[in-house]
Amino acid sequence: MTTSNPHPLPSDPDPSLPRPGLLRGVLAPVVTPFRSDLSPDPARFARHCSWLLAHGCSGLAVFGTTSEANSLSVPERLELLEGLTSAGVAPGRLLPGTGCCALPDTVALTAHAARLGCAGVLMLPPFYYKEASEEGLFRSFSQVIQRVGDTRLRIYLYNIPQVAQVAITGSLLERLLKAYPGTVAGVKDSSGDWENTRAMLAFAPDGFQVFVGSELFLLENLRHGGVGCITAGANVNPGPIDQVYRLFQDPGAPALQAGIDRIRAILQRHGPLIPALKAVLAHFSRDSAWRTVRPPHVEMGLDETNRLIGELEAEGFSMRGI
Amino acid sequence: MTTSNPHPLPSDPDPSLPRPGLLRGVLAPVVTPFRSDLSPDPARFARHCSWLLAHGCSGLAVFGTTSEANSLSVPERLELLEGLTSAGVAPGRLLPGTGCCALPDTVALTAHAARLGCAGVLMLPPFYYKEASEEGLFRSFSQVIQRVGDTRLRIYLYNIPQVAQVAITGSLLERLLKAYPGTVAGVKDSSGDWENTRAMLAFAPDGFQVFVGSELFLLENLRHGGVGCITAGANVNPGPIDQVYRLFQDPGAPALQAGIDRIRAILQRHGPLIPALKAVLAHFSRDSAWRTVRPPHVEMGLDETNRLIGELEAEGFSMRGI
Repeated sequence: MTTSNPHPLPSDPDPSLPRPGLLRGVLAPVVTPFRSDLSPDPARFARHCSWLLAHGCSGLAVFGTTSEANSLSVPERLELLEGLTSAGVAPGRLLPGTGCCALPDTVALTAHAARLGCAGVLMLPPFYYKEASEEGLFRSFSQVIQRVGDTRLRIYLYNIPQVAQVAITGSLLERLLKAYPGTVAGVKDSSGDWENTRAMLAFAPDGFQVFVGSELFLLENLRHGGVGCITAGANVNPGPIDQVYRLFQDPGAPALQAGIDRIRAILQRHGPLIPALKAVLAHFSRDSAWRTVRPPHVEMGLDETNRLIGELEAEGFSMRGI
Repeated sequence: MTTSNPHPLPSDPDPSLPRPGLLRGVLAPVVTPFRSDLSPDPARFARHCSWLLAHGCSGLAVFGTTSEANSLSVPERLELLEGLTSAGVAPGRLLPGTGCCALPDTVALTAHAARLGCAGVLMLPPFYYKEASEEGLFRSFSQVIQRVGDTRLRIYLYNIPQVAQVAITGSLLERLLKAYPGTVAGVKDSSGDWENTRAMLAFAPDGFQVFVGSELFLLENLRHGGVGCITAGANVNPGPIDQVYRLFQDPGAPALQAGIDRIRAILQRHGPLIPALKAVLAHFSRDSAWRTVRPPHVEMGLDETNRLIGELEAEGFSMRGI
C-alpha cells in the first residue's frame, strides 16, 4: 500500500494516439433500454444515443445513475459501450460512468474506456462502505489511475452524496488534482446544492471542468465559469437545454432557463425520475419497450404516464424526430 | 416484467442432490486476506477458514460486509469460494454473501453457491438506488430466485440499513416468505436495533432462522428463539462467542455474554472494525500480511494497533492455535 505517495504514471501504451478533445455543453446520462427478459438492448441504445447527439447533446455520459448503470454487470457495460462505437458513435463523444464498489471493476471499465478513446470517464467513489476516510477515497482513485496507467485518461469525479452516500469533498478534490493534474479533469456535482457547486467553481484551477448534475443549475453554472450539465432531463429535452447552453449570455437566457425548469419540475413531480423518463421516451417514440426498468426500479403505470404526458404537452413539450 | 406474480420454480437441475443441512450457532463473515498488490490470497483465506471452523464457528458467512466483499469483483468471489471447497472446506458450512447492485451479478454468485452445495446465501438488497419501493425490492429478490431456479437454494436476507441504506422491512419479508416459503430461509439482522430483531423473531414462522449481526445480541436472540449470530467479532473471538451459544440456558450465560461484550467493545472503540480485526489477526498470527485492506479502507497504524492489542490482552484475550 504505497498509494498515498503517488509515483509517476507508467508510460502511455501507445503515446502516438491523440488525446480526445474536451467535452462541454449538454451531456445525457443515457437511459438504458432493456428487452422483456431484462437484458440490455444494444441496438435501441445506439438509436437513442444517435438521436441525442443530433438533437442537442454534445456528449453522452452513458452508464450514469439515470442509466441504471449500477444495475448492469461489468460485461454488460463493456458490451454496450463497444456496441455504441461499432454503431458509429464517436468515442470522443462518450463519457462513460466507470466507478464501482470494487477496485478491479472500476479499473477494468476505466481502462476499457480509455483504450476506446473516450473523452473521459465519470467516476463514482466506491459507495458501499460508508464513512470512508479522505485518505481511503484518495487511495481508491489513486489506485485506479495507477493501474489504468494511460496518460490519455481523463477522470471526472462524480459527486452525488444523496445516492452514493459518499461525497467528493473539496479537500479530496484538491489532493487528487495536486497528485494527478493531467488526469483529474473535472467534476459532476449532483449534490443539488448550488453553494457546493459554487465552491467547486471558485476553487477550480484553469481548465478544470465543472458540470452540474441538473439543468436547473445550468445558467448559474455557465455564468460562474462552469462548462455545462450532465443531466437526466437531457434524455428527453436535449434541444431546449442546449439552447440555454448556447445562448447563456443572451438577454433571453433566463426565459429559456425558466422553460427547461418547468419541464424538469413536471418530470420530478411524477418521479421517480428513471421510470418517468422511460415512460416519456416510450410515449413519444411509440416504442413501449422503453418502459422496462430493472428492479429495484418499477416501471411507471399507464395512468400516471398519461397524467405526466398531459402535463408535458400542456407546456408544449415534444420530442422532434424521435 | 411479470415478477410480481411469481410462478413455480423451474425443476431442480438435479433433484437427486440432497439439500444441505441448516446452519445454527456462530458464523464468521470471514475477513479476506490481500497480497501486497491487493489481490486476494486464497491460501491464507482457506487457512483462516479452517481455524475458524476448528475454534467455535459452525459456519462461514464468507463475503460479508466485514469480508470487504463489496470491494471484490464477481470473478474474484467465484475463485475464492472454489478455492475454499478445493481446500477441503465443506460447502455445507458456507453461507456466502451474494447480493450485489446488479441483478446478473447476484444471480451468477447465487447460482454458483447453490451449485456448489452451500448451506445457503446471505443476500443484500441492491443497494445503490435509495428509496427503492417494497415492490421493487420484492421483484429484485424474486428475479434472483426465479433465475437461479434451484430448489436447493436457501436465501438469508441481509438487513444492514446503516450501510446498505436499503432495509429489509417486515412487510417485504412477509411477502417474500409467502411467495417462496422453501427458499427464503432466514434473516441476518445487523440493524443494531434489538427491537427490530425482536419484531422479526415474533413474526418468524416455524423453521425461519433469525441470526443477529453482532455477538452483543446473541444471548437475547437465543432466548427469543433466534438461532445464532453472524458477527465480525467471530473472526478473532470465535470460541468464547460459541460458549455463549452452547451454554445459553446455563446460569453462567450472562457472565459469558458480558465477557464477549467487553472484547467487542474494545474492538469497536478502536474501529473502523475491518482494519481493527485484520490488525488483531496479524498480531496474533504473526503474519503482517493480514493488515492489508483494499481502499476505501485504510489499514490500522502500528501505534493504534499496539494500544488495541494491549487492551485486549488486559482482558485475557488470546487466539489459541492461530
